[in-house]
Amino acid sequence: MIPFAHRFIALARERSPLCLGIDPSAELLDHWGLSDDAEGVRRFCGIVLDAAVELVPMMKPQMAFFERHGSAGYAEAAAAVAQIRAQGALCLVDAKRGDIASTMEGYAAAIFESTDGLGADAVTLNPYLGFETLEPVISRAQVTGGGVFVVVRSTNPGARLLQTARLSDGRSVAEALADEITAHNASIGGDIGPVGSVIGSTLTEEDTTIVKRLPRSLILAPGLGAQGAEMSDVVRKFGAVRGRIVPTISRGILRHGPDRTHLRDAIKRYRDAAWSIWDTAQAGASA
Amino acid sequence: MIPFAHRFIALARERSPLCLGIDPSAELLDHWGLSDDAEGVRRFCGIVLDAAVELVPMMKPQMAFFERHGSAGYAEAAAAVAQIRAQGALCLVDAKRGDIASTMEGYAAAIFESTDGLGADAVTLNPYLGFETLEPVISRAQVTGGGVFVVVRSTNPGARLLQTARLSDGRSVAEALADEITAHNASIGGDIGPVGSVIGSTLTEEDTTIVKRLPRSLILAPGLGAQGAEMSDVVRKFGAVRGRIVPTISRGILRHGPDRTHLRDAIKRYRDAAWSIWDTAQAGASA
Repeated sequence: MIPFAHRFIALARERSPLCLGIDPSAELLDHWGLSDDAEGVRRFCGIVLDAAVELVPMMKPQMAFFERHGSAGYAEAAAAVAQIRAQGALCLVDAKRGDIASTMEGYAAAIFESTDGLGADAVTLNPYLGFETLEPVISRAQVTGGGVFVVVRSTNPGARLLQTARLSDGRSVAEALADEITAHNASIGGDIGPVGSVIGSTLTEEDTTIVKRLPRSLILAPGLGAQGAEMSDVVRKFGAVRGRIVPTISRGILRHGPDRTHLRDAIKRYRDAAWSIWDTAQAGASA
Repeated sequence: MIPFAHRFIALARERSPLCLGIDPSAELLDHWGLSDDAEGVRRFCGIVLDAAVELVPMMKPQMAFFERHGSAGYAEAAAAVAQIRAQGALCLVDAKRGDIASTMEGYAAAIFESTDGLGADAVTLNPYLGFETLEPVISRAQVTGGGVFVVVRSTNPGARLLQTARLSDGRSVAEALADEITAHNASIGGDIGPVGSVIGSTLTEEDTTIVKRLPRSLILAPGLGAQGAEMSDVVRKFGAVRGRIVPTISRGILRHGPDRTHLRDAIKRYRDAAWSIWDTAQAGASA
């Protein structure tokens, strides 16, 4: 069983570290001239996956936009996961699940089981109920060679109050969470563990110092393109960890569809920009 | 359009304020001698709903245990929501969704839309990304006469560090969230607003003082029965708000199945205990 982080890094060396978000939102379905139903979602995914063949190491379907269409939409999410994996990419299900531990057992099966569940490689998690509640999902991920990405710092305006609140020992909520992630990954051994982090790419440079507390974690960095950050921001702010950063882009690429050539060209442009992060890291390592 | 809180309170006066959780977990399916698949989930829900007819004002299917069985399980969740509503009870989907606002638009449709979505009356939400991210779901709820319940304070051991961390103004994360909930409900007008709160019933009495910051909120109190709290604890700790408390029980009742009579008797016992909370409130009001 090859650990998730190793599988990601091996693919990222071939294809760049770019994660492509798959967001069949009402807005994008309309922009692409597709029907706002499960059939429209299926055609949307078919076009995106075809355009992305062999270009990216990981794709990230956003569950909210599949669940909009009920069980038929949920079935399209499962089909997309299977197709992404069949194309040789990893699939990160963006579900931000977060509940008490006994409930998280259920979500662990829903995400990672390959017969009834989605059979994904990784999932995003929401830690409001405490890091310990995520343990059943992390355990299940480890058994299947999968990974998780825990939201640590998001960049929407209202997130700061909560995520920078202070524990009695002076650490912020996000810092304490980062330390728990690092301790867990250290307990597994190896260089990079199964517990990744989500840290918005539009944070201030002061806020991004949190990545120094995450030496053993892949770091998913959303917010590129449509949300305002540029790849050069990522290189500058996340320089210390750039060999482990996973820049993720959704609307910034998807708005170029539905034309396959335009879409593939957009993926290539972001992929080439994403290379620069890891190339710089390699240059830094050999300097 | 009758607001959600009014619909709940009218039903609670007839049926007690008890919310019945529907958790078709692997453990309970096994205990009931049902197959661990979508068919087993369907039979489980059929038995629970039949046993609960006209006894409770609200039922709460836990999405994790439906999603374990993929799109077929998700379809059973939709069927359960429809059947709960057909029986004249309200349906609170326990999904703990929490993501950025543009994604929450998708979840809002998934939960409240009656054609493609689940068509539920209410949903639980996770606030780690900030209260403001929940706004699209709250707005949609208001339009459909629905409600939301935001996790404020959970009682699992790991939750305390995060939820009691302090903002720069001295309030805890949970207190600040409670204030945002109250401000939102006040902006809607009326006595009780559409934004409810989730506060564990096994908190210490010191921790339950947070309910004083929630004068306009229904308060969902999980943790009764299997998780260790007794109804008398709820009366004691939540006395100040007992006319708005919604005690919720899942395993404590469900472990009495699959026999319909045993199950219905268990629901009646907890319902009678739940009456005591509101009766006391009425006695208090008239004293």
